[in-house]
Amino acid sequence: MKIINANEINPILLEKGTAKKTWGKYLIGDKDGAKKFHMRIFIVEPGGQTSYDQHIYEHEVFVLKGKGKLVTIKDGNKVETQIKAGDAIFIESNEIHQIFNEGDEPLEFICIKGVKEIYY
Amino acid sequence: MKIINANEINPILLEKGTAKKTWGKYLIGDKDGAKKFHMRIFIVEPGGQTSYDQHIYEHEVFVLKGKGKLVTIKDGNKVETQIKAGDAIFIESNEIHQIFNEGDEPLEFICIKGVKEIYY
Repeated sequence: MKIINANEINPILLEKGTAKKTWGKYLIGDKDGAKKFHMRIFIVEPGGQTSYDQHIYEHEVFVLKGKGKLVTIKDGNKVETQIKAGDAIFIESNEIHQIFNEGDEPLEFICIKGVKEIYY
Repeated sequence: MKIINANEINPILLEKGTAKKTWGKYLIGDKDGAKKFHMRIFIVEPGGQTSYDQHIYEHEVFVLKGKGKLVTIKDGNKVETQIKAGDAIFIESNEIHQIFNEGDEPLEFICIKGVKEIYY
């Protein structure tokens, strides 16, 4: 068993890809012995966005605070979905996705990602 | 992509094993196409407890509200850990675990479980 409180972790500014004003905290990962899926928190400041992303591993997201917009691509068309606290969101394998904070408060969400190896 | 708000789901009373006064909501599962890990919310009322549990699949827990006590067994000894909002908890494969709410407010947490098949 491993336990850590999210408030005790300093967020790291994510500068991967097209991410802007987005901070991450790794909550549960390899270092804890988690072999199959990992838990992180992301904080997107107002005006910020996560990276435009696509990958084999699934995401499961739970929105803790704030509001935002999720963009995905379905059959070649851009789909915009409003997201808010309490939303649970499943992003399937290889689905393009990006989250924007167009509000005036931080958007905070848990994001679980599968470890690549479980998809092969 | 699938999205559902936790507030729109009616909780189900869990009567499995030694669970008491514990309610569950399935947020992301098979029905959504999630093949590797699933997301649920559990609400433990004051005086309640989750089932005394042990299984191959890992858990990753994030406490949303309230306080509680996590009991695990380490080298044959009972270990009690206080838990509170913001805690991220990793329960490893085959680790015995049970969560109690000894407070006077509901204890609410997200729990991700791996699908059994990814452990074989």
